Amino acid sequence: MDTKQRSRRHFLRDGAALAGMAVAGVRLAKGQAQAEKSAASVAGSDNGEATAPFRLFGPEAPLYGTPSENLQRMPTIEYPFATRTPQQDLHGIITPSGLHFVVNHGSPTPDINLLEHRFLIHGMVDRPLLFTVAELKRLPSVSRVHFLACAGNSYVDTFARKNLPQSVQETHGATSCSEWTGVPLSVLLQEAGVQKGASWLLCEGADLKKHSISIPLTKAMDDAMVAYVQNGEAVRRENGYPLRLLVPGFEGTRNVKWLRRIKVVDRPYMTKWETGVYTNLLPSGKARWFQFEIEPNSVITRPSAGLHMAGRGFCEITGIAWSGGGTIRRVEVSTNGGRTWKDAELQHPVLPKAHTRFRFPWNWNGEETVIQSRSTDEWGHVQPTLAELTKIWGVTMDFWRTDTARIQHFNASHPWTIKPDGSLRNEIW
Amino acid sequence: MDTKQRSRRHFLRDGAALAGMAVAGVRLAKGQAQAEKSAASVAGSDNGEATAPFRLFGPEAPLYGTPSENLQRMPTIEYPFATRTPQQDLHGIITPSGLHFVVNHGSPTPDINLLEHRFLIHGMVDRPLLFTVAELKRLPSVSRVHFLACAGNSYVDTFARKNLPQSVQETHGATSCSEWTGVPLSVLLQEAGVQKGASWLLCEGADLKKHSISIPLTKAMDDAMVAYVQNGEAVRRENGYPLRLLVPGFEGTRNVKWLRRIKVVDRPYMTKWETGVYTNLLPSGKARWFQFEIEPNSVITRPSAGLHMAGRGFCEITGIAWSGGGTIRRVEVSTNGGRTWKDAELQHPVLPKAHTRFRFPWNWNGEETVIQSRSTDEWGHVQPTLAELTKIWGVTMDFWRTDTARIQHFNASHPWTIKPDGSLRNEIW
Repeated sequence: MDTKQRSRRHFLRDGAALAGMAVAGVRLAKGQAQAEKSAASVAGSDNGEATAPFRLFGPEAPLYGTPSENLQRMPTIEYPFATRTPQQDLHGIITPSGLHFVVNHGSPTPDINLLEHRFLIHGMVDRPLLFTVAELKRLPSVSRVHFLACAGNSYVDTFARKNLPQSVQETHGATSCSEWTGVPLSVLLQEAGVQKGASWLLCEGADLKKHSISIPLTKAMDDAMVAYVQNGEAVRRENGYPLRLLVPGFEGTRNVKWLRRIKVVDRPYMTKWETGVYTNLLPSGKARWFQFEIEPNSVITRPSAGLHMAGRGFCEITGIAWSGGGTIRRVEVSTNGGRTWKDAELQHPVLPKAHTRFRFPWNWNGEETVIQSRSTDEWGHVQPTLAELTKIWGVTMDFWRTDTARIQHFNASHPWTIKPDGSLRNEIW
Repeated sequence: MDTKQRSRRHFLRDGAALAGMAVAGVRLAKGQAQAEKSAASVAGSDNGEATAPFRLFGPEAPLYGTPSENLQRMPTIEYPFATRTPQQDLHGIITPSGLHFVVNHGSPTPDINLLEHRFLIHGMVDRPLLFTVAELKRLPSVSRVHFLACAGNSYVDTFARKNLPQSVQETHGATSCSEWTGVPLSVLLQEAGVQKGASWLLCEGADLKKHSISIPLTKAMDDAMVAYVQNGEAVRRENGYPLRLLVPGFEGTRNVKWLRRIKVVDRPYMTKWETGVYTNLLPSGKARWFQFEIEPNSVITRPSAGLHMAGRGFCEITGIAWSGGGTIRRVEVSTNGGRTWKDAELQHPVLPKAHTRFRFPWNWNGEETVIQSRSTDEWGHVQPTLAELTKIWGVTMDFWRTDTARIQHFNASHPWTIKPDGSLRNEIW
């Protein structure tokens, strides 16, 4: 038993003694006999009839089960082409596939016929290759847990709506995490025989708008894959069925859905998505291009804006952290508006380029305060505060309030304000 | 890049050269220009219209997504009280919640009202406690990836049906793996104050039959949890909503679903499930009781009985391994009926008391043969062959053919026979 486990075990007893926390649950305090009588009225006796209220779940056991509770993705202003993950309702690190965020770049989700779909590798290769999905499935495969994050996560909707308070589903609902399975792209490129001088890939989807984007060959040969499975079963239609490119740690737009073509080339193709959309227009008038990697980020998902504190006393603060650079090494939490920070506990396994669940035990004293988190990845890169990000980007605080700017790769530590009445608000700007 | 990655990259080229493997995919061999023309006809040109066949996935983007392909649990002879996971169709280690196996011990699935459900801890404790689910959710939580396995997995249905060939869904479909989140049971027991002399827990579900079973206090204090989340969202109804006991590594029946009561006691309660059902009747006439832990096990899920080889040449053999004792350290594969064994590759992360995905590249020469796997866990315990298990249990080979015996904890290495026509059969007995 390690120290953390031990402290966890003594948590309730010590917590109650130390902080006057509101212990959850009813203590049946009138003596054991009476307690057991009370217990029997709730739970029935060992041999008596069941008394707990329930109805039977139909005569049929579903052969594909459905959720027990009604969680939903949230439509965005780009709906039906974009929806967001309900972070405030989720636990652990695996996002249920039905709740994975969706960004379609303006295309409806194509309903592709599995048998008719083809995937082509051509361009600067010795042997252009055309695959059916069944053919790809015969090749060596790999499974890895990775997050996907839209470069616009943490920011875009916040400003497009201007309705405070925004929930964490609105501000950070464009990242999700799944166990993906597919063929390493390096295997396919090796087989095709990449020619000397090649340095980039142009990747294209089979959607109505034929989403096209460039990725560097070095990244493709490192850890990219052509994925056909998400969380054990076929990739969901809105997430790229039957094939999606997975480029771990790179902004979501590079992970081309409904993948049908990779052309090996010797330069980036400067598609509209990489020159006109997924860029940051800076005050100088210049735009930052080709910022692939998702920076260290994190957010407290519970409690968060739109939720309500259960009361004074113990509250387990929890959230997720992620970095396109690799493994999360540390998450710190502040419960006093950033004045001081303490280490949160990271839930194992902590996997590279995957969501990492963090937890932080806290006692709320009932006063107004601000809570937030910040992450550090394996490179020592630290998620900045808003003031720090302002300085890093060379902008002013007013810059963030400009709703004409479409900000990408915004990764400032996100504060939630807790009001004395227990309500939580997004008062970042 | 590690060695395995490198060898993977050279796989297709070397594999083709070495073994005359059938390379998947069509090589567009008539020259680059023609290849690209062919490519364009499939994939469209960079700026032209999309030509690939697809229809749009409705005007609405689903707020809770549905599967892309029609995988299903399989009804068993105990249906609707038991269904099995389609191992042959799955990838990675996370079982989609909708496909998690179900064993209800003869009860229909109760449809419990979340707000009315109560969970009681009483018996030999200083402070009996009664919790709502909301109260439990306020307490410190933990998330862990763990398998569940019915003690009857690998055997029961095989004999109950007597229809060869049985698929891996029939033989090994009663194990699944999820990321579970809940309250450590140790936290709750500490808070209740376990009295001196207590040594067991009697755990009871809120189903029609009030499934009741004993677990040792030592295990409860080690790593058991009261789980309310399965793969990120609420536990599925057929898997215990709103609360299920999770006893990692112990046979499925101890992981009480619809948990409503734990009574702390000083002895096992000898319920019918632990004295009359989940036991092994041995030739001596004695039964083995209280065999909690799931032994080292594994099975090749693809190719497996009922599937068909795609052809001679390269075939990635894959499957899952698990042990209630902890972490899987090694999986070996034999492709010649057990005469020789070679190490399979384990997909990381390899987690304790979780499914572990293994892969083994192989070239099938088209001749009849038998393939099988065996696992070794962190304690050095090795999954036995059928002959070895026969010796360990002190039975005869005829014993396995007795369809009157309900065998639990059967974990023999499971062979699949590949016929020259590419069909696969279960010819274990």
